[in-house]
Amino acid sequence: MLEQFLSHIESEISQLSYGEKPKELYEPIEYLMNLGGKRLRPALTLMSYNLFEEEWKEATKPALAVEVFHNFTLMHDDIMDEAPIRRGEPTVHEKWNRDVAILSGDVMLVAAYELISDVPDSQMKKVLKRFNKTAAEVCEGQQMDMNFASRSDVTEAEYIEMIRLKTSVLLGFALELGGLVANQNETLCAQLFEIGVNLGIGFQLKDDMLDVYGDPEKFGKQVGGDIIENKKTWLMLKAIERGKGRPEEGELKAWIKMEVFNSDKKVAAVTKIYDKLGIHELAEAEMNAYFKKGFDGIDAFPVAEERKATLRAFGEYLLRRDR
Amino acid sequence: MLEQFLSHIESEISQLSYGEKPKELYEPIEYLMNLGGKRLRPALTLMSYNLFEEEWKEATKPALAVEVFHNFTLMHDDIMDEAPIRRGEPTVHEKWNRDVAILSGDVMLVAAYELISDVPDSQMKKVLKRFNKTAAEVCEGQQMDMNFASRSDVTEAEYIEMIRLKTSVLLGFALELGGLVANQNETLCAQLFEIGVNLGIGFQLKDDMLDVYGDPEKFGKQVGGDIIENKKTWLMLKAIERGKGRPEEGELKAWIKMEVFNSDKKVAAVTKIYDKLGIHELAEAEMNAYFKKGFDGIDAFPVAEERKATLRAFGEYLLRRDR
Repeated sequence: MLEQFLSHIESEISQLSYGEKPKELYEPIEYLMNLGGKRLRPALTLMSYNLFEEEWKEATKPALAVEVFHNFTLMHDDIMDEAPIRRGEPTVHEKWNRDVAILSGDVMLVAAYELISDVPDSQMKKVLKRFNKTAAEVCEGQQMDMNFASRSDVTEAEYIEMIRLKTSVLLGFALELGGLVANQNETLCAQLFEIGVNLGIGFQLKDDMLDVYGDPEKFGKQVGGDIIENKKTWLMLKAIERGKGRPEEGELKAWIKMEVFNSDKKVAAVTKIYDKLGIHELAEAEMNAYFKKGFDGIDAFPVAEERKATLRAFGEYLLRRDR
Repeated sequence: MLEQFLSHIESEISQLSYGEKPKELYEPIEYLMNLGGKRLRPALTLMSYNLFEEEWKEATKPALAVEVFHNFTLMHDDIMDEAPIRRGEPTVHEKWNRDVAILSGDVMLVAAYELISDVPDSQMKKVLKRFNKTAAEVCEGQQMDMNFASRSDVTEAEYIEMIRLKTSVLLGFALELGGLVANQNETLCAQLFEIGVNLGIGFQLKDDMLDVYGDPEKFGKQVGGDIIENKKTWLMLKAIERGKGRPEEGELKAWIKMEVFNSDKKVAAVTKIYDKLGIHELAEAEMNAYFKKGFDGIDAFPVAEERKATLRAFGEYLLRRDR
């Protein structure tokens, strides 16, 4: 089933038209949308709708709305992060320029609202309000993430809250949206949201771990990229916490402060510090706890077992993935 | 009536809350929204709703949505234009920074969608789709405007299309929205939109004229600002067209090309060229033609004459204003 969802999404995205003129506004949208990606979010919406309805293609446009929204956040985040590369290709602000990336992103957000308007009339206001809240929270998460860069007292709880906002609520909304489009009640929709949020936090913790422990052959990005940038990931925050009063504290601080260094050496040294402090195991346990909450939510969800197979398999894939 | 609308809007804006944390995201929104402005757009929505309904305060939130959307475009446009000042105060990207202005603007667009969700359920989808189209068109107009800066073959028709998109469709939508919220049919809503678009083009042509012929004592901005920047306004495009084969052609081109100049001298010289070519009168006639279409639309609009008094007076104010 998952394969069908994904190939349908891919084919729909390749046919999506956002507008014509001026081309500086619309070409970047097609460019970014067609750079690929895992398409997790629209797949979640189709899966969720399919928990209740056979004709899952009816949820296509709302599903695409979530993917367009996600890519809008990437276009604007890439400006803020001054990222030159996205999925192996130049980012929009590099290929065109900053102003194009701002304005084209704005139109992309509008395009997401247009796609999401394809829901039953009776559900329109509910969907709109939930989408608004989610969209605002994703921006809040991004701002928190930027604020973390200049702070040295970020707590683990703040980090979890940041990834909940920046990443997880959108995965939660993607699942909830399937329920909303299928006219399900508030309780069920809230349960779907919770499942998505828990899987989403697990997903982001997995991402943090892959950045350090991923196989360079399989992982798309540079392994150790977060370490090189001193990014305050869960691993880093935990290492700072667990290192207190131990020799690793000084070593870690020294690497963080160092302005000129050999990247490979820094990655190897910080990874060694993580190992001495048992960070990998702790992160694994933390991630597993969130995935478990997600799977428990799927177990408890009141639809027939066979209906839930795809969603469960998808959760397993998120947990096991190596890229 | 207009006074009541405006003071109600002002008081509502001062009480609006967009969110709490992180403050970098929400403070800039309050800052920009409270810098003032004419509040034309929300006034139009209230006026329009009041064509049909006594309880005009019921259209408050949709009216505010249009104002929040307008200010969102200002926040992002100011980044693109690298404008240091807005309404006499530092722009958001100056007072905070570029990233804050991007992300805070994004949340502002979402806030506009949230405010506009306060319409009757039966109208929600229609309103959303019309708002989406308008929002996309405003962005298209902004991109066209930016493209004009590097082109030397902009036609008068393209200029009118640019200001129609960048400025007028939002004034049209502001009027249409009042009709939509009051459950009026498609024909009436389309008529309201057309009235707003025509008044809007007249309004922008008035703006272009005030920039050159305004009274420096009353006009908020520097008189001649467009001339100094070689902005391709209707006046400039018309002067290029009418100057062809006349001595003014060379003079105008020389001023446009000049990289070092005395601002006052350039403004005086270009204004003199405009005068010799009769540009002021031509612009006045063009503006009057659009205002006339707008007033004709008001005349033909099928509600009692006394109901239309405020809207008509407002159109007159837009036509006569000196700031």
